Amino acid sequence: MRDRFDGVTLNQMVQFSSIDRSFAALADPTRRSVLERLGRGSATISELAEPFGISLTGMKKHVQVLEDAELLTTEKVGRVRRCHLGPRRLDDVQAWVDTYRRMLDERLDRFGELLERTKGNPHE
Amino acid sequence: MRDRFDGVTLNQMVQFSSIDRSFAALADPTRRSVLERLGRGSATISELAEPFGISLTGMKKHVQVLEDAELLTTEKVGRVRRCHLGPRRLDDVQAWVDTYRRMLDERLDRFGELLERTKGNPHE
Repeated sequence: MRDRFDGVTLNQMVQFSSIDRSFAALADPTRRSVLERLGRGSATISELAEPFGISLTGMKKHVQVLEDAELLTTEKVGRVRRCHLGPRRLDDVQAWVDTYRRMLDERLDRFGELLERTKGNPHE
Repeated sequence: MRDRFDGVTLNQMVQFSSIDRSFAALADPTRRSVLERLGRGSATISELAEPFGISLTGMKKHVQVLEDAELLTTEKVGRVRRCHLGPRRLDDVQAWVDTYRRMLDERLDRFGELLERTKGNPHE
């Protein structure tokens, strides 16, 4: 068990780390807003920071988290760093959420069937 | 700016906190596996902890995070706490991810059109 971290083997961690980083990056409303802003076109870190009224340092940290999750890429243009939407399409995040919702629906269906059977044969 | 936290007003925080908690809860592979396990039926905290080889205390922390995100409910049965899938259907998470992916597709479409126009009129 010594090679385990939080109950998950290192292999599993590597396998899961990309989706983990995506979910973690999206858990912050400022970071989600930054991605929505970049959907309208690229922006410098100052341009991203300004509407939120946060410091450049604060925005740089958010940008770094998004860059680590490959949701954003940065490019140095002269002395300024421009941010663009990154290559990740969130396929794995969407697939996980879809599967989870289907699982919930199936549980509800089974519960509904059980209820129907009980209604049809109240003394069984 | 004093009433702001991380550039987001308190109102926005309250408004966004449910989706924030969902994304954060799903950022851990053990917690996602716990939800998948509960999709097959309810379980005690010991039953959840065992296959991961983690302590009861460790699993209790994960269960608490999932419960705070309303992805899981717990019920005391005698001296044992049973866990069930919670009421959240991740509608907001799914909606955000869908919107993001549509936004990416639109950007790619615009880029493709630009490329087509450039090919059609190479000297323009």
